Amino acid sequence: MNNIKELPIGIFDSGVGGLTVVKELQAQLPGEAFIYLGDTARYPYGPRSPEIIKQFALECSSYLLKQPLKVLIIACNTASANAVGLLRKNFTLPIIEVITPGAQLAAESTRIGKVGIIGTTATIQSSAYIKALLKFDPRLKTFSQACPLFVALAEEGWISGEVPKLITQHYLKDLIRAQIDTLIMGCTHYPLLKAVIGETMGKEVQLIDSAYATVNVLKKYLKENGLLSDRIGPLPNKYYVTDAPDRFARVGSHFLNKELNDVQKIFIDKQS
Amino acid sequence: MNNIKELPIGIFDSGVGGLTVVKELQAQLPGEAFIYLGDTARYPYGPRSPEIIKQFALECSSYLLKQPLKVLIIACNTASANAVGLLRKNFTLPIIEVITPGAQLAAESTRIGKVGIIGTTATIQSSAYIKALLKFDPRLKTFSQACPLFVALAEEGWISGEVPKLITQHYLKDLIRAQIDTLIMGCTHYPLLKAVIGETMGKEVQLIDSAYATVNVLKKYLKENGLLSDRIGPLPNKYYVTDAPDRFARVGSHFLNKELNDVQKIFIDKQS
Repeated sequence: MNNIKELPIGIFDSGVGGLTVVKELQAQLPGEAFIYLGDTARYPYGPRSPEIIKQFALECSSYLLKQPLKVLIIACNTASANAVGLLRKNFTLPIIEVITPGAQLAAESTRIGKVGIIGTTATIQSSAYIKALLKFDPRLKTFSQACPLFVALAEEGWISGEVPKLITQHYLKDLIRAQIDTLIMGCTHYPLLKAVIGETMGKEVQLIDSAYATVNVLKKYLKENGLLSDRIGPLPNKYYVTDAPDRFARVGSHFLNKELNDVQKIFIDKQS
Repeated sequence: MNNIKELPIGIFDSGVGGLTVVKELQAQLPGEAFIYLGDTARYPYGPRSPEIIKQFALECSSYLLKQPLKVLIIACNTASANAVGLLRKNFTLPIIEVITPGAQLAAESTRIGKVGIIGTTATIQSSAYIKALLKFDPRLKTFSQACPLFVALAEEGWISGEVPKLITQHYLKDLIRAQIDTLIMGCTHYPLLKAVIGETMGKEVQLIDSAYATVNVLKKYLKENGLLSDRIGPLPNKYYVTDAPDRFARVGSHFLNKELNDVQKIFIDKQS
């Protein structure tokens, strides 16, 4: 196991949302082992301040990096938007976040140059997607909307019917009015609401799933650096959470469309 | 300030919800000083496990008790339901929680002996209200319902219109069918949704606000023990939070119907 190719990929998220990245990883790179950490004792990160999000992200990353990893993925838009700079300053391994890949895919996908972004309050307030989009194409017009109730809906598995439809219509009305043709689902929870979001925006609007784009970037990085795993057979994947492993297993099964076992509760140290 | 009567009352909650207790305190006992701690870095407590709720409650209480207090109020139903026993084991000062007063008021109010309880998932799963109600009257019939989206609605100030109405109808349909005549709003956030809850249940159903009942119990305790404050003039009240003081001030103003200033961010120590 001293071969760097066979090291696991570290993935952290505020809770279960990052499992949309795991799902993509298993689809696109089924031979890669991973260790997932969901900070379920302190989720959601979306309504919190940049300072505390940075602190939590540092604590989660430090925990995962107690063991050798080949890459660290920040599978949480809120943490990516607020803490990637700090983490890159603190750790030397390659860190992939979910904002840049989603922004690039959106910039390449739009035909009319009008891109919408939905996310948590902290992600939208950071303007991270706007900055990333304008780096790819400074002529783009961007339209942002925080959708704070979406995480609660996804967590409860309340993803169809009248209530999610009305909430979605409420949040997206300005984006519809802006006549965007591409919408970034800038929170790893939102793909669970993809059906109702798509129905509300209309089928001419492309939905960008940052989980898909992120694993694409990971795959490219691993290939270019000769780091793809050659492993055959069962993977030593691990799921860690900071609270309520049973709830994580139950809610997580909605995300992965399969049963989740062996979720382990861990304690992370406070950083000062 | 060595006079115990003039010591402040400590109040803690997972976030802003406990301000419904502050509002009652200011209405019923305007001469009492208080120190409020909202654990906004880790709210909401509702979806978390009993173990982590106990740990957080112990950390918050220990912080408040760094200074002398005459009473500690657990102004959070989830923490009351899960952690009051542990806190009473750890601290010698009188501790008032919000479950028993609400249950007593409900048991005294019902005419037909059928009481409903709504609360967070952790509060409902603890059965704390059912146990408390049956202690007051073992013949009562109880009906419980977790309403996990209510906290998010209250936090966002989304308390009227079609969406809160539909969500409320969804959660309360079994309680309506059960033909209760008394409903305990077993979460300090819920009084913000009182109008829509009342409209949905019908005006023959009495709504029990645990904040009101709790401050009643506090007043009785202070009177009987000669601990009412004689203070005249401005009070040295303090608001502490563990994250995002600006957001607390903004959301908190909905709860108190007045502007909130001087909210201070503090760090609490981890207990092991």
